[in-house]
Amino acid sequence: MIDYIRDGQEIYRNSFAIIRREADLSGIPPDLEKLAVRVIHACGMVDVVKELAFSEGAGTAGRQALLGGAPILCDAHMVAEGVTRARLPANNPVICTLKDERVPGMAKAAGNTRSALALELWRPHLEGSVVVIGNAPTALFYLLEMIDAGAPEPALILGFPVGFVGAAESKAMLAADSRGVPFVVVNGRRAAAPWLPLRSTRWPRRWSDGGTGAAVRPGRGPGRP
Amino acid sequence: MIDYIRDGQEIYRNSFAIIRREADLSGIPPDLEKLAVRVIHACGMVDVVKELAFSEGAGTAGRQALLGGAPILCDAHMVAEGVTRARLPANNPVICTLKDERVPGMAKAAGNTRSALALELWRPHLEGSVVVIGNAPTALFYLLEMIDAGAPEPALILGFPVGFVGAAESKAMLAADSRGVPFVVVNGRRAAAPWLPLRSTRWPRRWSDGGTGAAVRPGRGPGRP
Repeated sequence: MIDYIRDGQEIYRNSFAIIRREADLSGIPPDLEKLAVRVIHACGMVDVVKELAFSEGAGTAGRQALLGGAPILCDAHMVAEGVTRARLPANNPVICTLKDERVPGMAKAAGNTRSALALELWRPHLEGSVVVIGNAPTALFYLLEMIDAGAPEPALILGFPVGFVGAAESKAMLAADSRGVPFVVVNGRRAAAPWLPLRSTRWPRRWSDGGTGAAVRPGRGPGRP
Repeated sequence: MIDYIRDGQEIYRNSFAIIRREADLSGIPPDLEKLAVRVIHACGMVDVVKELAFSEGAGTAGRQALLGGAPILCDAHMVAEGVTRARLPANNPVICTLKDERVPGMAKAAGNTRSALALELWRPHLEGSVVVIGNAPTALFYLLEMIDAGAPEPALILGFPVGFVGAAESKAMLAADSRGVPFVVVNGRRAAAPWLPLRSTRWPRRWSDGGTGAAVRPGRGPGRP
């Protein structure tokens, strides 16, 4: 027998304790702390937290949306499988349209990737959703184009595409925040197993909204065209 | 319209060209070069190649196994979804047993994680398989225990579990290589989106085995108990 910890809960406790000991979370707001810990956990690098960029209130916007039953829209099935269903607060649908049979034809017609055009099938679900781009920069670019053209806005965009062409650029464009949609990204090239943060949150029995009961709705930034 | 490259093939070509320009692949044998490029691509860090550890001939062993129809055994569904089926040379089965209804009971009885005990259901498929541990250190530890206890041996183990407890340790144990099973790992804590390498290989129409036609079968290392 090899000597290792076999208790899943103890493994998580120890892992998160190590992260909190080693990582500098001082720049992370309370509503993104668990997300930051999970991003670090997923990629194995405590310093990745320095690259985390987010709009104010992004964590709260995402939690409110999920508590209200918002769907989670993922750009890849691999990403969708990274979302632990048991942790979701409202049995939220997890949607990936990449394998829809209409997508290849739409992509060819548009001269863009399947990952991008698959988002056309998100339209009925977009309003108030939580979007997770965990694979394709073209999907994130395309989402921004859709929003610029008047598509319904998600409640939160988690922008973590991978690769050396377009990943850093698409994240920077999202983080420029001119659209006023709440977001979280890891700046630069590092991928940081992006979608795993969604597994992180332990939902309180009753999420506090400060007593207002108001739904969080992002304002539009001044830079919106 | 945002200005970005919309041609998927061109994106890949450019991405891989950047990697080959920036990364030092001099320590990587030819049969692992594409895997190394894909690991870098998946995690966005060219220096991760320094942490890549492998047994001699690991890439060849994996390719031979897949060409022979070997199944790919994954410790998580997220990992299984990361394998692009269209790139597989023999319509290889991709198997993940984590959601099997027997697993929770087996895990409880054994006092170990579901990720570990799910491997008990791999036994009929283990011989000559390609194993991808992309999530749970306990799964990798458990696999090594199974092999030590006489279970059939995989043709290749890709060991890339994540987390701060057991990940580096389980990979080091695999890389110690006393079992003689071909392996690839990324040393240390970095996760490096591990399973994605499997998407990397373009299979030649006819893979050359040097004319011998011999199946690659790993020898046992001298350190095996």
